[in-house]
Amino acid sequence: MATRAKPDTIKESCIDTALDIIEADGVEQLSLREVARRLGVSHQAPYKHFPTRDHILAAVVARCYAEFAAFLEARPRHQDGWADLGEMGLAYLSYAREFPLKYRLMFNAPLPAPSDHPDMMAKARHAFDILQNRLTSLNVRDVAVVVDHPARHDALFTWSCLHGLASLMQSDVLHTLPLEPADREVLVSRLMARLGAALNPGC
Amino acid sequence: MATRAKPDTIKESCIDTALDIIEADGVEQLSLREVARRLGVSHQAPYKHFPTRDHILAAVVARCYAEFAAFLEARPRHQDGWADLGEMGLAYLSYAREFPLKYRLMFNAPLPAPSDHPDMMAKARHAFDILQNRLTSLNVRDVAVVVDHPARHDALFTWSCLHGLASLMQSDVLHTLPLEPADREVLVSRLMARLGAALNPGC
Repeated sequence: MATRAKPDTIKESCIDTALDIIEADGVEQLSLREVARRLGVSHQAPYKHFPTRDHILAAVVARCYAEFAAFLEARPRHQDGWADLGEMGLAYLSYAREFPLKYRLMFNAPLPAPSDHPDMMAKARHAFDILQNRLTSLNVRDVAVVVDHPARHDALFTWSCLHGLASLMQSDVLHTLPLEPADREVLVSRLMARLGAALNPGC
Repeated sequence: MATRAKPDTIKESCIDTALDIIEADGVEQLSLREVARRLGVSHQAPYKHFPTRDHILAAVVARCYAEFAAFLEARPRHQDGWADLGEMGLAYLSYAREFPLKYRLMFNAPLPAPSDHPDMMAKARHAFDILQNRLTSLNVRDVAVVVDHPARHDALFTWSCLHGLASLMQSDVLHTLPLEPADREVLVSRLMARLGAALNPGC
């Protein structure tokens, strides 16, 4: 008699397979029926774990957020907080370059409604909190115009810069510009230096 | 006898119709056959102006770049260069918010190979040059680490910040975060203030 796979294992296998489908054929091709077909299980089997296609997509994206957060946490650590923020920025950009599909799924593609998928939402928030907490523990200086600046604003600014560069480096539009090969390498260090100046002006 | 439309008019009508198709049904549905069908002309008619689907897509995107550049140029002008850069940043973000589909087509979607579509490439470069020229005429300060900083690096940094915020504000991931409604308004002014501090540290 064959050993029955544990429910958790089946659920994880469904998520693995969903990601395979997205990687091979694009997110449009994801369906619970196709997941079942590739796993060689009954059409109904994935529905035990995922009531709808959105639920399995949310589980895929939630796993991406968790991997992304772990990737940021695994950066080389520095005693100096600003240097540590720099490492986090480099880790962010490395993740986007190494895992472009997962990056797009998290940040550049339509998501299932977050409020219907609390686990996905929690994992996205956790990734954001890593950046926000890093900034909170730094003495981020204010710029002249504004009196108070909650750490989430600093985090959103920093995220915008990193996301903008990560997205442009993956985009086709960069190929329309007369850039030199060395520019792409330099871009990252320039961005990080400017970002430091933006958050810590006058230093 | 009916007046024949001029070839240029037909070409422009094809581009209008292509944009209508993309807006209504998504870029995947764009085809020269569908353009002809909606215009009520023969299947072959669009091919006189556009040898392939990529050519009409490139013409659509080229028009978007031209409109975008004109939008940036139409910003309120300031004598003070930094204030003028600020207006350009606001114009950039306004364009992204007012024309999200065109924005995505230019910057977040696959483009036809730029080298095969020189007019599209030229119009993209022109939009970038508006930003780069604005920065060149400012006394952008260097940050400590690097000796020289060509204006294109400053332009790419500035573009990354603006593109990142524009993209995040259109993305679903922002809905996963515990932001307050006022945060979205504040974000733009915070970004612009930080951007100024980044490019002009110590001032």
